[in-house]
Amino acid sequence: MLIVKKFGGTSVANKERIFYVASRCVEEYLKGNDVIVVVSAMGKYTDELVSLAQDINEKPPKREMDMLFTIGEQMSAALMAMALNKLNVPAVSLNAFQIAMHTTSAHGSARLKRIDTERIRRELENRKIVVVTGFQGVNKYDDYTTLGRGGSDTTAVALAAALHADACEIYTDVDGIYTADPRKVPSARKLKEITYDEMLDLATLGAGVLHNRSVEMAKKYGVPLVVRSSMNNSEGTVVKEEVSVERMLISGVALDTDSVRIAVIGLKDVPGMAFKLFDLLAKKNINVDVILQSIGRHGTKDISFTVNGTDFDDAVSVLEAGKARLGYEELRAEKNIAKLSIVGAGMMSNPGVAARMFECLYNSGININMISTSEIRVTVLINEKDGVRAMNAVHDAFDLGD
Amino acid sequence: MLIVKKFGGTSVANKERIFYVASRCVEEYLKGNDVIVVVSAMGKYTDELVSLAQDINEKPPKREMDMLFTIGEQMSAALMAMALNKLNVPAVSLNAFQIAMHTTSAHGSARLKRIDTERIRRELENRKIVVVTGFQGVNKYDDYTTLGRGGSDTTAVALAAALHADACEIYTDVDGIYTADPRKVPSARKLKEITYDEMLDLATLGAGVLHNRSVEMAKKYGVPLVVRSSMNNSEGTVVKEEVSVERMLISGVALDTDSVRIAVIGLKDVPGMAFKLFDLLAKKNINVDVILQSIGRHGTKDISFTVNGTDFDDAVSVLEAGKARLGYEELRAEKNIAKLSIVGAGMMSNPGVAARMFECLYNSGININMISTSEIRVTVLINEKDGVRAMNAVHDAFDLGD
Repeated sequence: MLIVKKFGGTSVANKERIFYVASRCVEEYLKGNDVIVVVSAMGKYTDELVSLAQDINEKPPKREMDMLFTIGEQMSAALMAMALNKLNVPAVSLNAFQIAMHTTSAHGSARLKRIDTERIRRELENRKIVVVTGFQGVNKYDDYTTLGRGGSDTTAVALAAALHADACEIYTDVDGIYTADPRKVPSARKLKEITYDEMLDLATLGAGVLHNRSVEMAKKYGVPLVVRSSMNNSEGTVVKEEVSVERMLISGVALDTDSVRIAVIGLKDVPGMAFKLFDLLAKKNINVDVILQSIGRHGTKDISFTVNGTDFDDAVSVLEAGKARLGYEELRAEKNIAKLSIVGAGMMSNPGVAARMFECLYNSGININMISTSEIRVTVLINEKDGVRAMNAVHDAFDLGD
Repeated sequence: MLIVKKFGGTSVANKERIFYVASRCVEEYLKGNDVIVVVSAMGKYTDELVSLAQDINEKPPKREMDMLFTIGEQMSAALMAMALNKLNVPAVSLNAFQIAMHTTSAHGSARLKRIDTERIRRELENRKIVVVTGFQGVNKYDDYTTLGRGGSDTTAVALAAALHADACEIYTDVDGIYTADPRKVPSARKLKEITYDEMLDLATLGAGVLHNRSVEMAKKYGVPLVVRSSMNNSEGTVVKEEVSVERMLISGVALDTDSVRIAVIGLKDVPGMAFKLFDLLAKKNINVDVILQSIGRHGTKDISFTVNGTDFDDAVSVLEAGKARLGYEELRAEKNIAKLSIVGAGMMSNPGVAARMFECLYNSGININMISTSEIRVTVLINEKDGVRAMNAVHDAFDLGD
């Protein structure tokens, strides 16, 4: 069997963690399996690199940021290979150049295009554990790129897909996917299984366990994912096409406090306005989430939308630069918001789910600012200070707890 | 003009130093010149990486050590590019993969084979300052290698040679080549010029300003080197084929305390013994320096030699493994030794130079353990504790001071 194991930053944060991870890989290897380990940068090292850069240049070129970021995983990978070697198992660390991890050009948010698996296969044939740097890639100009948040998950899934791995295990600091973040909802319960689609909505919506792009890719190539703890041996949650147990109405409740709302006030009420606005943002690679359009005063209209907090500055400067073309009156930003979502493949065949959520929030005295829904998801925008209370209330309302 | 500038670790040790270096590069750039900057890892960062590795595995695989080491220069290079960008000059950092810096395979002591200059030329044509990671290369297996001590100097000279640069400036924490280390010999004087050959002997012998391989390469390709201070604008020392000023008898005195002496006692007195012994060491890439063979007791012979302190463990284990084949009685190691050398192209035509050195040491009551000479150099092995006193005495004896 070929197993891809991915370990995040906290899982390799120090010597003890590194050896724990190494010993679990050795265990797998000694069963006769081929093992690929994908690692992230150690602990908060990426944050340290950001401060290092900020100290030199508060707006560093993204190309150079990626050049700096990629050293983080290379450090983890080399140290992991040394730890495996210390445990008497031959290992080799490989970076994005060495595995020809080709991506698109966009620095900081590149997408994987293809992987040349030849080197990895050769090392596996020599019975080495292969340690791969997550998160990083190389674009067509031979420049380093990074895959954005959760990029190491995507690296792991891409390797599992390209090498037809038998399993892709994502190790994290939680031991699976829960009905809600257990740090915020004490009664949250671990799920045995969840579908790709539910996981996609949960990832997008800030459950924070798996990144949506890794789930998308797993779904596309049918890679079965297992989300497990890097601290203990508990069983984890399997993410796959169809769950085998009876489907619940709602699988989970997610809260995302990283979003910022931007309101563009007083746009002319003529066709094509929304296109012009979001086209500007798309060209800068800014992902827009919940969108709301409403009628403004004097025949104008207002468009509100949310973006990730890290894109806020870029979004505002793009919109300000485009003010003449868009012809709006003013921009307003609201940073203290939270996105609360319920997700469940079961809601497709059960009307009234959204209503039950709204009722619960009303009973808790929580105001809803914006609403957005899909077939398997209902999202509301609320005040950030109400976030955790609202999540608990909704979790209870749908009987998700133990 | 195309200028290659190389800055060592102390020159890029922190934000202030990085900006000082950046501003000097910008100055050159604004004169209309093309500028390539070669950087080492920041300050003591390489040492930090060594401890990090040692903590995981006290004998880390050399291949993985190189994987870890190379992040040091990549960090400096990315930060330098950010600093240049902050000063409104376009810049790009490039690592060994990006400039196809091909080397031999030996990890930790690789030798440069060739450089693909296409990417660098393109960036220079776009009027960017090109920041290159020193010290590192890539071997035929697509693995990172490092060039060993002083490797960044070699990187700079190789780039200057490959791109036919008009100058190659090596910036260090001293402002040129001195008749002796000014920290140890207060009367030491800065030289305006020195020949490649003298510099080669000085570098080999521990003057520590330029690495011998970089000087060898500069000599081979006729690259004029300038050794300058990274702290101020003083003129520095030019290293070239022939010096234009009147040649002095002696150019300098060098002291090297990094060497260790190993004595192999009681070898059989049969032909081929020296070959077998040094062949073993050569195969492990261990450089042997001063060699002395003497007659031992009962028809045996003893061979003593010095190696760099970092090679000591390797040398001992190779010799112990080869004990049966070599058939010696015992190994002895002496760590508290110093190599004191005088260097000067002028001594070729002046007999009695060595004698004057020995006389001076005798007058100072300093015992000589071993002697080795070349056409332009005399080296003696003395007790480490006598090193600085001996250097000052010899410096005075040849009237090298101000």
